[in-house]
Amino acid sequence: MITGNNYIGNKQSAKGETTYKTFNPQLNIENKPIFTEATQEEINEAVHLATAAFKTFRSISRLKKADFLNVVADEILALDDELIETYCSESGLPEGRAKGERGRTVGQLRMFADLVLEGAWIEATIDTAEPERQPLPKPDIRKMLVPLGPVVVFGASNFPLAYSTAGGDTAAAFAAGCPVIVKSHPMHSGTGELVASAIIKAAKRTGMPNGVFSNLNSSGIEVGSQLVKHPGVKAVGFTGSIRGGRALYDLAAQRDEPIPVFAEMGSVNPVVILPEALKNRSVSLAKTYAGSITLGTGQFCTNPGLLLGIKSEGLSEFIKNLSDEIIKIEPSCMLHPNIIGAYEKNKQKAMSQANLRVAADYELDVQTNYARQAITTVEGKTFLENPNLHQEVFGPYSIVVQCENTAQLTDLISKLEGQLTGTLIADENEASQYPELISALQNRVGRLIFNGAPTGVEVCPSMTHGGPYPASTDSRFTAVGIHSIKRWVRPFSYQDWPNDLLPDELKNENPLGILRHLNGMLTNQNI
Amino acid sequence: MITGNNYIGNKQSAKGETTYKTFNPQLNIENKPIFTEATQEEINEAVHLATAAFKTFRSISRLKKADFLNVVADEILALDDELIETYCSESGLPEGRAKGERGRTVGQLRMFADLVLEGAWIEATIDTAEPERQPLPKPDIRKMLVPLGPVVVFGASNFPLAYSTAGGDTAAAFAAGCPVIVKSHPMHSGTGELVASAIIKAAKRTGMPNGVFSNLNSSGIEVGSQLVKHPGVKAVGFTGSIRGGRALYDLAAQRDEPIPVFAEMGSVNPVVILPEALKNRSVSLAKTYAGSITLGTGQFCTNPGLLLGIKSEGLSEFIKNLSDEIIKIEPSCMLHPNIIGAYEKNKQKAMSQANLRVAADYELDVQTNYARQAITTVEGKTFLENPNLHQEVFGPYSIVVQCENTAQLTDLISKLEGQLTGTLIADENEASQYPELISALQNRVGRLIFNGAPTGVEVCPSMTHGGPYPASTDSRFTAVGIHSIKRWVRPFSYQDWPNDLLPDELKNENPLGILRHLNGMLTNQNI
Repeated sequence: MITGNNYIGNKQSAKGETTYKTFNPQLNIENKPIFTEATQEEINEAVHLATAAFKTFRSISRLKKADFLNVVADEILALDDELIETYCSESGLPEGRAKGERGRTVGQLRMFADLVLEGAWIEATIDTAEPERQPLPKPDIRKMLVPLGPVVVFGASNFPLAYSTAGGDTAAAFAAGCPVIVKSHPMHSGTGELVASAIIKAAKRTGMPNGVFSNLNSSGIEVGSQLVKHPGVKAVGFTGSIRGGRALYDLAAQRDEPIPVFAEMGSVNPVVILPEALKNRSVSLAKTYAGSITLGTGQFCTNPGLLLGIKSEGLSEFIKNLSDEIIKIEPSCMLHPNIIGAYEKNKQKAMSQANLRVAADYELDVQTNYARQAITTVEGKTFLENPNLHQEVFGPYSIVVQCENTAQLTDLISKLEGQLTGTLIADENEASQYPELISALQNRVGRLIFNGAPTGVEVCPSMTHGGPYPASTDSRFTAVGIHSIKRWVRPFSYQDWPNDLLPDELKNENPLGILRHLNGMLTNQNI
Repeated sequence: MITGNNYIGNKQSAKGETTYKTFNPQLNIENKPIFTEATQEEINEAVHLATAAFKTFRSISRLKKADFLNVVADEILALDDELIETYCSESGLPEGRAKGERGRTVGQLRMFADLVLEGAWIEATIDTAEPERQPLPKPDIRKMLVPLGPVVVFGASNFPLAYSTAGGDTAAAFAAGCPVIVKSHPMHSGTGELVASAIIKAAKRTGMPNGVFSNLNSSGIEVGSQLVKHPGVKAVGFTGSIRGGRALYDLAAQRDEPIPVFAEMGSVNPVVILPEALKNRSVSLAKTYAGSITLGTGQFCTNPGLLLGIKSEGLSEFIKNLSDEIIKIEPSCMLHPNIIGAYEKNKQKAMSQANLRVAADYELDVQTNYARQAITTVEGKTFLENPNLHQEVFGPYSIVVQCENTAQLTDLISKLEGQLTGTLIADENEASQYPELISALQNRVGRLIFNGAPTGVEVCPSMTHGGPYPASTDSRFTAVGIHSIKRWVRPFSYQDWPNDLLPDELKNENPLGILRHLNGMLTNQNI
């Protein structure tokens, strides 16, 4: 049952006077539950509890931590239909997507439980003493990764489950040993509260300290700002717009003690289509890309918003095919009236730019909050000269840029802002003829895809979800996969520390049997 | 021969009109060479060349990169007496220290050459495709670490070799595949120019692209500021004061494209001395710490500036012993008149604080630019209430805080700013009685030392040199040891990329024979 309350640690709380409701974009009506925004007092209490919880949670055994993560997954599944129905009513997304995203969320939690159980992720590195070394004895030093402290996670509008309350950021932070305070996304606070209740149940069932998790409601920016500025908060995870992410980054950088902000933000995910591929696969490529551009109503951070080619008959043909294919696709619902409002505004702004041609625009009547997909096209020179055209239009929209030649295409790529992904569409033996173009593309993205589409982010160890700014505020980390845990940890060394006071990970006996770097060799042997 | 010119890539250049000289603090006279500050034009050219060099340097073979690093080391050694003499004349440090630091610098370069040759540092992670997977096929994804781009390194006043021109930051950046622009430290620009000439010789001998290295002179902050703000610069390394590091961090955070700044800054390196140890080893501890506090005239970032104990006869006795021992030590020369000026000013400011008692102050006449060591002492309550007392006094100075009890000591530790190191001095079986104190200390530092002194930073894989702010601006990385390379790289993934276009590190055949994570298993087998 959704109460509209915050969770301040294990306790429900609603001391504030500001309330709001979520919205069902399919029915175009407000949902019933009334959410109470967190107050400054509740924010302080949540951070205070998280700070206290960190004292024990940061060194809790791997068995207990893995148990907690797995039980969170169990409790999310136990929410059953109520969760799926709430998700759909707050997002306009279909049931299949809700179930798929729940599967991914639960899968991520179990993936981190496995990581924690396996144990080698802490990167134990041991150099034993050489007391006889000249001119100075060598001390015994042992290093491992330790958690940063309380982490604030901002829910994402477009992933009510997988990138929100118990999503990738939260799962990785728990696995690292960091308490989490979620700033719930106002568009799906009901979904958020249900998932929060699952986390709290799991925390109680598995004996986690009170404060290991809190969930704060807010309809505006104030709660998030206060959290990021709070001295007790040690890191921030965010998925959303460039404007939102940058604002949080700036607040964090201006603190007396600056803290890391990992914000995964905007990306137009350039797709380069080489001439031979265009010649030989125009129709199938058009079908694939019409599907990719409209997938999830274009509301994926890896949505291909920029298609790049060299001017030719083949490219003109492709634009026609893509336009034909995309118009055939049934429009679908966006997440919220504000999101479709922004989509229509940004699409119109893009379309009104000089020397831009509209290639396809879905013109039939659609249901309220359903997005009309569109394709535009422009010359390479125009695109290069007009930064407005580089901006993401969040929704089922893409621009095809027709470059004069390979040199202009390469130049254009090298001048793009940082991106999550870049895709190369090429025929056999074609790609090897474009080394400079590929090199330029690699330098602007976090993931390079060959003959596929950027949508679909596989959750696996080899995934990089992140990239040069503004794709993310810190390209040195990925937001997806087991290595995303590295955002929330720091290396820590013990020098000449007594064996019985060392954490198990670093003890001579290697009681956990983990793989460790011992005097330069990787081994799970004891010392 | 020192010319006073900048190196803009391989070319010497001195277009500016601002000049300056370095200073010999032992002789209290200016050194002869005249250095010309880099102009905006020269800065732009250096960044332009570095950006161009990055295109090839970032994917140069590991053999060539290792060769470059080793030849830099060779060329530094070939500078022979001229380097040692210049070092001494610009720092006031003795010849033994110069040679020791040269050994460390050369050792670091060779360590990174070995790391690059071995190859596993790029963390190759491969998940092979499962085309039959339901409901969606699994793509082939392969990840490795790739360099960020041109890095700016700021020379440190207190390590003219090991943390300056070809120091740890530069060696790690080269190893990562990043071109480096050094903002030479104005106090040792001659040493810097000599080392720069060695790097340029090595770059030419080993066929590195022009622009892989530049060395810019400056006496003020302008050249450094311009470099950090330059859009072509992608990361910054700095070792120095909190004020300087924070200013660069702020500039970098305010850019349109914020970039990572790894600044290793101030630290007072708290040392906690437990009662039993005080009782049993007062004299030997006093000897050890008198030595540690005055080592290198107290000009180490790991200098123990804060000694913490619980009020007792033992502690009073220790303060007396430490005072006696430290006064016996011969004063030594500081790096520069400005440094000794700041030391005397900060020491006097600390000594003038209310309720602080001067326990020892070297009062005999000393040579110009030689520092008088001092020990002060204060009550725990006074220290807690006066943040001025928490500030680093860079030089041979330390404050002993006498706490009321364990609770106050633990509280005081938990309220300290972030530190590079924390040290625990305890007798056998004593440490285990203070779990909360140790936990509090661990949470404020990057390295915890048992029964030793924080001075002496072993260069080895298990070292953490960094810590919570303001010890460093990003505690997620170490500045010393092979893992410091991680500051300058980002993860990058290839999805379904053709095998022959993949870098060798990720090819099916594993031609480099490196250890890789293949479908969750660590192996050097091929696919």
